[in-house]
Amino acid sequence: MAYELYYWPTIQGRGEFIRLALEAGGADYVDVSRQDDGKAMMTLMETAATPSFAPPFLRLGDRTIGQVAAILAWLGPQLGLSPNGDSDRAWLNQIQLTFADLVAEAHDTHHPVDMMAYYDQQKPEAARRSKAFRKQRIEKFLGWAEQVLSKNAAGPAWLVGDRLTYADLSLFQLVEGLTYAFPTATARVLKSTPHVVAVRDRVAALPLIAAYIDSDRRIPFNQDGVFRRYPELDD
Amino acid sequence: MAYELYYWPTIQGRGEFIRLALEAGGADYVDVSRQDDGKAMMTLMETAATPSFAPPFLRLGDRTIGQVAAILAWLGPQLGLSPNGDSDRAWLNQIQLTFADLVAEAHDTHHPVDMMAYYDQQKPEAARRSKAFRKQRIEKFLGWAEQVLSKNAAGPAWLVGDRLTYADLSLFQLVEGLTYAFPTATARVLKSTPHVVAVRDRVAALPLIAAYIDSDRRIPFNQDGVFRRYPELDD
Repeated sequence: MAYELYYWPTIQGRGEFIRLALEAGGADYVDVSRQDDGKAMMTLMETAATPSFAPPFLRLGDRTIGQVAAILAWLGPQLGLSPNGDSDRAWLNQIQLTFADLVAEAHDTHHPVDMMAYYDQQKPEAARRSKAFRKQRIEKFLGWAEQVLSKNAAGPAWLVGDRLTYADLSLFQLVEGLTYAFPTATARVLKSTPHVVAVRDRVAALPLIAAYIDSDRRIPFNQDGVFRRYPELDD
Repeated sequence: MAYELYYWPTIQGRGEFIRLALEAGGADYVDVSRQDDGKAMMTLMETAATPSFAPPFLRLGDRTIGQVAAILAWLGPQLGLSPNGDSDRAWLNQIQLTFADLVAEAHDTHHPVDMMAYYDQQKPEAARRSKAFRKQRIEKFLGWAEQVLSKNAAGPAWLVGDRLTYADLSLFQLVEGLTYAFPTATARVLKSTPHVVAVRDRVAALPLIAAYIDSDRRIPFNQDGVFRRYPELDD
């Protein structure tokens, strides 16, 4: 039985954290909206017994689960991307939720005051929010990830224990996304987070991830996703 | 062995979702910062083997877990506030994460462009963000909760299955918080969400919760928490 991923078909967005887990776990899955332009997704948003507030959501058989961190906490054990034990899984979940906070803040740099309006309708506010994000938040979040890696009793190769989990895949995506959206500010921070950079490189070198990134299943970054490159917001 | 909750000692804030679960579950716990004004919290932020990005975090023995939804997903089964089964727990987690998104948006109404600056330094932006929040988001989130209750195969008394879970406690807190911060806008929405109102009332009537709300352990809403009453942001 294949997993069915429902997400916007033209962006990486929040769905990319799920795609990376499915790919790294070698899962049998269908990225449904890329085949039907989102039609089934819009229907299922309404008709699912467990309706999702927003995409992405993942279906397996008669079960549909939404919210990135909830999907990953559910999927991780099935794909071998979670540690054993409730407490270690809680710690992994905590890390993922902290990354989710960073994603939300990255989104709000281009939509600080009205998420239903265009960026062009909130550019001064976006400039101010982005400045605070660049000056304080990127460093605080990636510095925290560096600390987590440094404190890992099993060594700094992975965030939790001594093997890959879904949070490492998400950290890869965060570094890629921040580098796309804020290349100058992110490069400055990455100089002081060598373990984070090493995780990014280690994930990129995983055979299944390297193959995915080379495939047309990986949608390029663009100006409709969470991470957007507006040069006026970087420095 | 008692749970130790670490959170800011003068606000409900995000810690309140944990306090409500501990209280409703009849847990033996200490709200540590209310005894030492946050000193141990600030130390543990740095020294924990699993460091938290921000409060709240909860310690039990040698394990410390942060992030509200991760704490609740870990704590729920221990306190009888989660359903059985990985899939139902994933659904509960999804609901909690959607509520967490609403909390983050409520916070951003008074801090839309710079979370390290005061509200007074971003009032025009706060007015615009609050308008979008009042006009679209409160209704969308509470309408979604109403839909979840309506679709529950076990009936609309609780969000998941036929008994109380931690998400019901959180929904109570959301209604209380939104009503405090945006009384006019929230009252308007609640007219069309009778199941949500009923959950709020049902939680308030739980003996352990009623006793908690009457106690001095429940910190009153105030202008330092997530939910703040600025009359100029409501209508």
